[in-house]
Amino acid sequence: MACFRLPTLGIFPLRVSASSRRLARRRIRSLLKLSSCNARRFGSVAASTVQRFDWDDVVRIAEEVQEDDDPSDLRGYFEKVRHCNRGSELKSEFVPFLVEDQIVGYIHNGFLGHLRQFKEVFTVGLHNNDCHDESHVKFHSSLITPEERTRAVGDAIKCLGELIPGTRNELYPVTSSYGMPVFFSLERAAAPYFGIKAYGVHMNGYVEMDGQKFLWIGKRSVFKPTYPGMLDHLVAGGLPYGISCKENLLKECEEEAGIPRSVSNIATSVGAVSYMDIDGCRYKRDVLFCYDLKLPVEFTPKNEDGEVDSFRLVPVSHVANVIRRTEFFKPNCSLVIIDFLFRHGFISPDNQGYLKLLQSLRSGDCS
Amino acid sequence: MACFRLPTLGIFPLRVSASSRRLARRRIRSLLKLSSCNARRFGSVAASTVQRFDWDDVVRIAEEVQEDDDPSDLRGYFEKVRHCNRGSELKSEFVPFLVEDQIVGYIHNGFLGHLRQFKEVFTVGLHNNDCHDESHVKFHSSLITPEERTRAVGDAIKCLGELIPGTRNELYPVTSSYGMPVFFSLERAAAPYFGIKAYGVHMNGYVEMDGQKFLWIGKRSVFKPTYPGMLDHLVAGGLPYGISCKENLLKECEEEAGIPRSVSNIATSVGAVSYMDIDGCRYKRDVLFCYDLKLPVEFTPKNEDGEVDSFRLVPVSHVANVIRRTEFFKPNCSLVIIDFLFRHGFISPDNQGYLKLLQSLRSGDCS
Repeated sequence: MACFRLPTLGIFPLRVSASSRRLARRRIRSLLKLSSCNARRFGSVAASTVQRFDWDDVVRIAEEVQEDDDPSDLRGYFEKVRHCNRGSELKSEFVPFLVEDQIVGYIHNGFLGHLRQFKEVFTVGLHNNDCHDESHVKFHSSLITPEERTRAVGDAIKCLGELIPGTRNELYPVTSSYGMPVFFSLERAAAPYFGIKAYGVHMNGYVEMDGQKFLWIGKRSVFKPTYPGMLDHLVAGGLPYGISCKENLLKECEEEAGIPRSVSNIATSVGAVSYMDIDGCRYKRDVLFCYDLKLPVEFTPKNEDGEVDSFRLVPVSHVANVIRRTEFFKPNCSLVIIDFLFRHGFISPDNQGYLKLLQSLRSGDCS
Repeated sequence: MACFRLPTLGIFPLRVSASSRRLARRRIRSLLKLSSCNARRFGSVAASTVQRFDWDDVVRIAEEVQEDDDPSDLRGYFEKVRHCNRGSELKSEFVPFLVEDQIVGYIHNGFLGHLRQFKEVFTVGLHNNDCHDESHVKFHSSLITPEERTRAVGDAIKCLGELIPGTRNELYPVTSSYGMPVFFSLERAAAPYFGIKAYGVHMNGYVEMDGQKFLWIGKRSVFKPTYPGMLDHLVAGGLPYGISCKENLLKECEEEAGIPRSVSNIATSVGAVSYMDIDGCRYKRDVLFCYDLKLPVEFTPKNEDGEVDSFRLVPVSHVANVIRRTEFFKPNCSLVIIDFLFRHGFISPDNQGYLKLLQSLRSGDCS
């Protein structure tokens, strides 16, 4: 794979000898085995395991010419979508979290046991649904305003300590769906434990040279609390309370990739993807607003907040190989890149499974 | 609206006087009333009523500065999506059409009465679905091969004469979903009467000048049997039997807009939209594969098959106004253009209803 610190104009796919191909295949198999084993054994813990691969591994795997590999075979992409959408068969283990009679989240029966101690914050009751009673969680009736609820649930989360690891002091707005009234705000790290809908902005930064498209790919710092060392977009971030999508994107562009507003301002919203992922007590219901930014050839990103180890410019077809062949990318980034591959014609209607894969990019409640 | 026979570089929105604004509004209202009345009264017949507007009307309506009009208000787009997705409450009037135990279509009870006369072609029976018996239609058991079924159903359609108007001698493949085995082929005009899934390719041709994007818009010939005189994409067509999406698109590009293969070859697949529309006995279940083609500034389309009256190059923001304010576009083209507006950032996540509108572009079975 042609990865560049500084872009150049000529890209020549590297043809490797039979022996290095064998070596590379063994390496791919061992890397793939390692990451899929981690995912199976540790669930979300795998997300925090530093991924032990470097850019050379990425390059080799992306560039390798495999006789038995067909780029129009979409199975590798389906696998990534499945990885973001696990556990739907476990939904019955969760109870709805209602605010003002609207479902804002889902809480696992096991986690609910911990919340029962906060009798002045949460009440657990029954409601009638299709002729049978179902449990639900509500706020205590004394908590009326968003501010009261935010404070009360925040205090409870502090008491729970390491039951909810990685708190960041970043608040997510809690609504029934996007743009609807905000019932309260919740610590970002707690979002999956309450199964609330979380929104994010994800931006593919690309460059066009000599009729060929390249994506800027980041490698996350090994010190990041989530998905350390994994591959990432040029810019991405959760959507916290009180900021618009576009404003959040411009802020993240500055912090994560040193992109001045004069450049990031032309970033284009292009759609959204969604997924639902149950992992133990955690229920992620995420919607990612997707953006494209076409960057000048001479621009080089520079991380400002220490969250990115390094950036490389990679031909889109090679990024596609990395998505199909490995689990190097932070899982939800795969969805946003597959969406990019659809919109830029790298996945075509003449590929078997086109419509099914396209639909699967919004497997979660995209509202 | 700046509409061009030949592209120019400077686009200046026309500011009109108060009196011409009033005049234009009256004209808009009368045009809107006319088309919505037609649609209500005549159902599909409205599709064959020549739309009595010319490019001057389009220009005036698209350019008009209306103080009470907010371009970020998505209601006009929702209206167009609804127009393509009517009658879902009437689905119980249709019975499934099964081939090899798979649903390939839906046939209206009333139309079924006409099919009962072809006892050697169709059989009507009952099958058990969720503990209650439901009617279904099947081929007669003597019709085994796709060729036998195609011939038998084709003969029946000929006998039905004007019950199925507008036959074109163009065959659509009939499958349970895209890319699956073809059970038989069916005359294009008959597709909605059998409720089969129909696939098409729709291409937005655009030009970028001075950082601004323009779409090439066609006005259909008044002699077209369907939607005469209405606005259309640069290129679109149904997907007949035995041709790939890309090959079909290249062929339509030549015939409809005189685009040589050297240019159309770079058309990019960008996704798909779908809708389901019940209109009397007709049940449309369409999936449109969307394409973008960025054209050179100096290129001017030229219709070769007499199906297009004329083409104009229109700023995308003005096309958006026409979609929101009128029913001038052939309805399913609106969906493909709204999809373009999403992918090119003309509709943004900060607009109220963004996710709902995005999802609604695939309201039909997109498989």
